Amino acid sequence: MKIVVIGGGAAGLGAAGAAKGANPNAEIVVYTEFADVAYSPCGIPFVHGNEIESFETLFLATKEQYVQTGIDVHYETTVTSIDTDARTISVEGEGEVNYDRLVLATGWLYSDPGLAGSDLEGLYRVKDIRAAMEWDKVIEQSKSAVIVESGFIAMEMTSALRHRGLDVTLVDPGPYPMSDVADPEIVEPVRQQWEDMGVDLQWGNNVTAYRGNGKLTHVETDNGDVEADIAIIGTHKTPNNALAEAAGIKVGTTGGIIVDSHMRTSVDGVFAAGDCTEIPHGVSNVPLQGLSGSHAYAQGKTAGVNAGGAEREYRSVYVPWGMLAGEWMLGGVSFGEVTASALGLEFVTGTANGITRARYYPGVKPITVKLLADPASRKLIGGQMVGGEGIKERADFLGMMTRTGIRVDQIATMENVYSPAIGALNEPIAVAAQNLLAKL
Amino acid sequence: MKIVVIGGGAAGLGAAGAAKGANPNAEIVVYTEFADVAYSPCGIPFVHGNEIESFETLFLATKEQYVQTGIDVHYETTVTSIDTDARTISVEGEGEVNYDRLVLATGWLYSDPGLAGSDLEGLYRVKDIRAAMEWDKVIEQSKSAVIVESGFIAMEMTSALRHRGLDVTLVDPGPYPMSDVADPEIVEPVRQQWEDMGVDLQWGNNVTAYRGNGKLTHVETDNGDVEADIAIIGTHKTPNNALAEAAGIKVGTTGGIIVDSHMRTSVDGVFAAGDCTEIPHGVSNVPLQGLSGSHAYAQGKTAGVNAGGAEREYRSVYVPWGMLAGEWMLGGVSFGEVTASALGLEFVTGTANGITRARYYPGVKPITVKLLADPASRKLIGGQMVGGEGIKERADFLGMMTRTGIRVDQIATMENVYSPAIGALNEPIAVAAQNLLAKL
Repeated sequence: MKIVVIGGGAAGLGAAGAAKGANPNAEIVVYTEFADVAYSPCGIPFVHGNEIESFETLFLATKEQYVQTGIDVHYETTVTSIDTDARTISVEGEGEVNYDRLVLATGWLYSDPGLAGSDLEGLYRVKDIRAAMEWDKVIEQSKSAVIVESGFIAMEMTSALRHRGLDVTLVDPGPYPMSDVADPEIVEPVRQQWEDMGVDLQWGNNVTAYRGNGKLTHVETDNGDVEADIAIIGTHKTPNNALAEAAGIKVGTTGGIIVDSHMRTSVDGVFAAGDCTEIPHGVSNVPLQGLSGSHAYAQGKTAGVNAGGAEREYRSVYVPWGMLAGEWMLGGVSFGEVTASALGLEFVTGTANGITRARYYPGVKPITVKLLADPASRKLIGGQMVGGEGIKERADFLGMMTRTGIRVDQIATMENVYSPAIGALNEPIAVAAQNLLAKL
Repeated sequence: MKIVVIGGGAAGLGAAGAAKGANPNAEIVVYTEFADVAYSPCGIPFVHGNEIESFETLFLATKEQYVQTGIDVHYETTVTSIDTDARTISVEGEGEVNYDRLVLATGWLYSDPGLAGSDLEGLYRVKDIRAAMEWDKVIEQSKSAVIVESGFIAMEMTSALRHRGLDVTLVDPGPYPMSDVADPEIVEPVRQQWEDMGVDLQWGNNVTAYRGNGKLTHVETDNGDVEADIAIIGTHKTPNNALAEAAGIKVGTTGGIIVDSHMRTSVDGVFAAGDCTEIPHGVSNVPLQGLSGSHAYAQGKTAGVNAGGAEREYRSVYVPWGMLAGEWMLGGVSFGEVTASALGLEFVTGTANGITRARYYPGVKPITVKLLADPASRKLIGGQMVGGEGIKERADFLGMMTRTGIRVDQIATMENVYSPAIGALNEPIAVAAQNLLAKL
């Protein structure tokens, strides 16, 4: 059997490895437009911020390792079309290539609102590691930057560029950072920190054009011009699905490929995984697009197992998330109050301000936990957190609570570890649940 | 109504505060033998180790604050007997004192095997903060110490005394550190670290006597004498229940007071909470004694609420635990393999060696997760972990998984946060569950 994977990111490589595991005799070919696979693009902002020493450390495996595991990766190779009836793809420089099973893992692109000057030199769309290496030299020569919209990567780039000493202006149409995913009081410490760091924060403002003579010199906005050597494009992720759409594979309302629980697309023999798909949210059933690298990897593995002829299911997602934003960590699961309200969900909230270790133990950090529950079922529908440590683990916890439908009553009486150096007497998740219950 | 609490630790103060909350008009009196309440005894080893600057920081509230909240604390006051028929207690210097409801929160003592020389100067039973302040000066003058058995506090004291430059010998009857609660491969990094720090580790050895002329000079063991200026007594906790037993209140097989789900003892109007009680374990139903400060506090609050006339239930415990042991953190929930085997439980294990952040992100630490599940129900029966960060939060997670009976299948496919600075692509708990499933 020949399994072809289009895309060399977390989903594509996850699929290739899992397909080989499920079917060791299968021929596995991966096509990627890029010069590399198997690196961690999520690390790029931290190299720019000098938190990580070099881009080289982001590579997970060498090309030789893929050869040895029997996965044939074709680098810098563009697939131009798919014929799902003939089960072939057209590959630049290779012609028609047949497949028995195809996995689409074509990933995402930054949403492009088509502004004037979008092709100027100086607009940085953080994504590819080779480009990042070149951009790092540009950053070194730059004095000023505009961050266009406060998505996850843009948030990390804001901290990174201030570390590098650039003047940074953040232009975002929302009223506060990450307003489409986070509640205002949760993200406030991050906003305050950037203000303290001297970032020029322009909320409720829109970029309207990029100007310059070949190279960016300033960004036009609703509220006037901002001089900038570079602009970091932090617009939303959109699925990279031109190939799939042209081949007649069904995409959903988000533009993501519609997949079933086995990551099968609408066309027989074709699977999809990662940021090019859409996945139903477990609470709302709203299709979601543009999840995390761990989702892409898990979806890829599911697609690969099934493409290889074994069986694995992928479930609805509840999307625990987390990130470092300067000195703070942000995280949560599913929805905050803003999103839940927008979706018309009924909910009750409970918030607790706590600490991560005993109050007197060195390194103790503040942490705020806000929970949302359905008043009828008393099950969690989401949560948001900001704090100094332990956010990723708590987001995973809340993810599992939401997914398994554990009631707030149970969370309110959870047992927790108390040991001065690693945990406080009161777990803030439990206290938030107690405060929520008090309102029911 | 008059509610009397005997004991000024986490359980006693938790009970007093909760009783006042449930019944603001009640008269609340707390008796304690000590000069202080409301400090964190768990912090004492870290002050000795110079991790925390001073003993003063361990105090949570001033005596004045208790006066203001309407809780009448009688310090350095000994209760000598209880008459549950007359509903009175005898108090040294106060005579007979009546009560409507009584809460026993008399805590624990170090198990005393009655060895010769147990009353010598130089034997330190870490517990009371005033004594700790005096002992800190003794430690400053001391050159050598023997740690007698590797309980939780003794483990922390081992690190602390090495930080202070003392020669430290650890004498423990078990084959490795904490062998009654932890599995050997989990605790091995801690053992190795102590060996590297130059602690003389004597496993499978027993202290048989303390020798000296008024003051300790050496400790006799099965394997010969050890010179020591001080000995840290790290024997097991036993419930401090002489008062309760003399009053005819029923105690169980562990010596702990038997309580129902409302923390009621066998005698009407008398409640108990904290280390003087025994609580059934959720998996095995074995009564447990000597849990953590957060358990004592939660039990105290339950006892106080019920004593005050409102209603609250306390459930079976699954006991997530965690601690700092030098550079490592240890933790888990319920049982490891050693204890589960001793209890005759059927189980399958799954282990994963993971990392806490992206492999290339500064501060990334190793972490090992070992899970035990019942092969029939596929539910967790326990877990053990060792790692560099995120142990407390993961122990809380496993505690909730065990308590709510979530199957390993669900844990194996959990969603997890991946963000380079705070979490790795693969969550080791999920991988351990996958490895466990592979054996089923």
